[in-house]
Amino acid sequence: MSDKKLADIQKDFSQWYQDIVYEAELVDQAPVRGCFVIRPYGTEIWDNIKSVLDKRIKETGHENALFPLLIPLSFINKEAQHVEGFAPELAIVTKAGGKDLEEPLVVRPTSETMIHFMFAKWIKSWRDLPLKINHWANVVRWEMRPRAFIRTTEFFWQEGHTAHATKEQALEEVLLMLQEYVNLAQDYLAIPVIKGRKSEKEKFPGAEKTYTFEALMQDGKAVQMGTSHLLSQSFAKSFEMQYQDKEGKLAYPFLTSWGATTRLVGALIMSHGDQKGLVLPPKIAPIQVVIIPILKKNADNSAVMDMANLVKSKLEGFARVKIDSDETKSPGAKFFKWELKGVPVRMEIGSRDVESKSVVVADRLGMAKESVYIDNIENYIRELLENIQNTMFERAKERLAAQWHKKEKLADFGPEMQEIGGFYQTGWCQDPECEKELKKYQASTRCVLEEKTFKKCFNCDKDSVSDVLVAKSY
Amino acid sequence: MSDKKLADIQKDFSQWYQDIVYEAELVDQAPVRGCFVIRPYGTEIWDNIKSVLDKRIKETGHENALFPLLIPLSFINKEAQHVEGFAPELAIVTKAGGKDLEEPLVVRPTSETMIHFMFAKWIKSWRDLPLKINHWANVVRWEMRPRAFIRTTEFFWQEGHTAHATKEQALEEVLLMLQEYVNLAQDYLAIPVIKGRKSEKEKFPGAEKTYTFEALMQDGKAVQMGTSHLLSQSFAKSFEMQYQDKEGKLAYPFLTSWGATTRLVGALIMSHGDQKGLVLPPKIAPIQVVIIPILKKNADNSAVMDMANLVKSKLEGFARVKIDSDETKSPGAKFFKWELKGVPVRMEIGSRDVESKSVVVADRLGMAKESVYIDNIENYIRELLENIQNTMFERAKERLAAQWHKKEKLADFGPEMQEIGGFYQTGWCQDPECEKELKKYQASTRCVLEEKTFKKCFNCDKDSVSDVLVAKSY
Repeated sequence: MSDKKLADIQKDFSQWYQDIVYEAELVDQAPVRGCFVIRPYGTEIWDNIKSVLDKRIKETGHENALFPLLIPLSFINKEAQHVEGFAPELAIVTKAGGKDLEEPLVVRPTSETMIHFMFAKWIKSWRDLPLKINHWANVVRWEMRPRAFIRTTEFFWQEGHTAHATKEQALEEVLLMLQEYVNLAQDYLAIPVIKGRKSEKEKFPGAEKTYTFEALMQDGKAVQMGTSHLLSQSFAKSFEMQYQDKEGKLAYPFLTSWGATTRLVGALIMSHGDQKGLVLPPKIAPIQVVIIPILKKNADNSAVMDMANLVKSKLEGFARVKIDSDETKSPGAKFFKWELKGVPVRMEIGSRDVESKSVVVADRLGMAKESVYIDNIENYIRELLENIQNTMFERAKERLAAQWHKKEKLADFGPEMQEIGGFYQTGWCQDPECEKELKKYQASTRCVLEEKTFKKCFNCDKDSVSDVLVAKSY
Repeated sequence: MSDKKLADIQKDFSQWYQDIVYEAELVDQAPVRGCFVIRPYGTEIWDNIKSVLDKRIKETGHENALFPLLIPLSFINKEAQHVEGFAPELAIVTKAGGKDLEEPLVVRPTSETMIHFMFAKWIKSWRDLPLKINHWANVVRWEMRPRAFIRTTEFFWQEGHTAHATKEQALEEVLLMLQEYVNLAQDYLAIPVIKGRKSEKEKFPGAEKTYTFEALMQDGKAVQMGTSHLLSQSFAKSFEMQYQDKEGKLAYPFLTSWGATTRLVGALIMSHGDQKGLVLPPKIAPIQVVIIPILKKNADNSAVMDMANLVKSKLEGFARVKIDSDETKSPGAKFFKWELKGVPVRMEIGSRDVESKSVVVADRLGMAKESVYIDNIENYIRELLENIQNTMFERAKERLAAQWHKKEKLADFGPEMQEIGGFYQTGWCQDPECEKELKKYQASTRCVLEEKTFKKCFNCDKDSVSDVLVAKSY
């Protein structure tokens, strides 16, 4: 970590993001196009997100399995829309074991084809349904405009894959997992999100319907946080996934897939960060409380260190606590470092605090800085962490509300959207030709909403089918 | 799962292994050479091993990070022995993003080169040492003789990578992590292991010294369970990993790497399994206790189910418990299934048990089958699980002792070793020419031991330097 200042978050958000991901030691550039090393602090944030999501995936009746990284190229070619969508992004193994391969292998960009091949072996009877599998994996999609966490050639994710006897059950699954994602974003990442359906143009290659949850970053650009797909039956048919139903007839199951990626870490940074650095929600922060003992040079600091250890032991049962006792750095340098790293609570302990049996507690949001008697410290910190988590979500909701506009005609709101960003809720006839007009303002449809508050399309004179959210996006 | 019988474990161990990995639904064959799908039950076993090891890796001061899957081919070529060792096994990406790549990318067979490239950026001063990183990852080595878990083209592992100021510190790290592996094997997997140093011929390509821990399977063949390497300085030099030491001079750090893989699951199966199927040690078993309610057709089974749920709730605080209430299967079929899957404890509850407020408890080792009053069930199960774990380790140690022979001359013990397997401890002059003689009996040196009980080499007339363990191996 250098002492380099971050770019001005108001004037150059993009450069601020570039600065913070390196300065907070979340990532480093790797010597392969579009790839990043995720450093320990970034890995810990991702692992915390993973463990919350993994628990819910299991609690909703799914089991984890591990599928191969390499997929025969012919598999990808089996579903027409799928291959069209992914072909330009594939990394292809043509040599292995010292020989040219007879059939090239694709480094998986997603695992539908491999998993459906296996499903076809496993699903023989109606008793085998529903089949609910989840896969934590790395995937590769060749990326021309890389951006740490947000767009990377290799990324990490979970991909859920399920098979059901009826379309209704499949759709129920799609919406259930979408709601799990929304809960993760709002209750843990403190990011308010909007859920809705992707347009035909924006949906997953090979899906019948794609549902998405979208968040708005501080610079007014949207991030697609994750998606949940009701797949078309063509996947099941391509892999001859036939089973005997209760009546003894051959049937194809209805499939879903749903995924969330390391991109969530990027959204976390861009939702909450400030000029001083990261701001991490307590539920996800690798370190929730950092204790900084104020050490004197050439003096006996044992009373201060004893108190730091005592406080740490009081908090460890419910909080992730670190004591920064590095003697080569000044307290000021430590404050700077842990603010940059977004630690929610900072505690200072000096010799005077030892006498008064109290510690100075400050929060990363700048709400308060107080001296707290150590007999009360557990309750105080427990409440403060909860308060920080809630306040972050409230602030993010207020920001979202301020950046969310309802407008009738693209010609009127387009220039403003292009200039300052934001979500624009408007009416849409659902004609792809009107959707294309958004490109003029570097925007796209983010999701089709259930409500209908506009009578006419944002572009043409036709009636609106339902509202749509449009925005510039990452 | 079919009702197919497993091959005779005494007569055809190899076929028994093939049968059990599929019948217990640990893996399935994937449509790519040498690759397997690891099914949910196998994934859960691996995840349990992972979480034990990950905890110890963190407690010993290492941090997890994520490094790219794809490595420039030129990186692999930088360390002469390394490329020689891995070249024949590489899978190579030559096309990506719709174009031929200027420089081919290797799907990592191991990450030394990538991680050392990053270490060279991160280690600039003595203050940056020691640097202790761990990486959970999938790796690919083209495999001509695949065998589920034991030899697979893609496998899962952790690879630890550390850098130290002195060779002594590096060696201390190498031996510390070797001991952590030994503890994992013995205390959790219930597999007794022997640790030692690999011969020059058997060591990791590019290492100065490789330490190993080896276990003996029931068929008398050894499995290399994992390795811990003191790397030669050539890795640090190849990547110009120079830093300023305390005296201000430029120095190269001393590196280590150490890894354990999904192969541990294979060793677990081959160490403990029997004619009925898997036998899993309680500490690693995905399900520790299976409760089988004896349900009557067309009857009110609610009292039996209530009692099953009551017992489950009593045990859930400390054990992983499953109730198998599938009404389409007979109790007999369920006993067969859960024995096959190696669940340590089986519990039966019928209507008579409800009346007597007791349950019938049987263990997978066949030690006892008892009726236990449900007020005592927590203590009984807690002790039984501990007892099973300890008994499995004791039995495995007895077996190892019976299969461990001390012999002077290869010419005498070679034929026996080839025929029935086992560990053979003998003397060795450490000349590779003598080591080559072992091939005649399909054996190799497994590890060089610290003790010296033989005066002469197993092959020639020269003095022995120290004892060596030789065996056939997977």
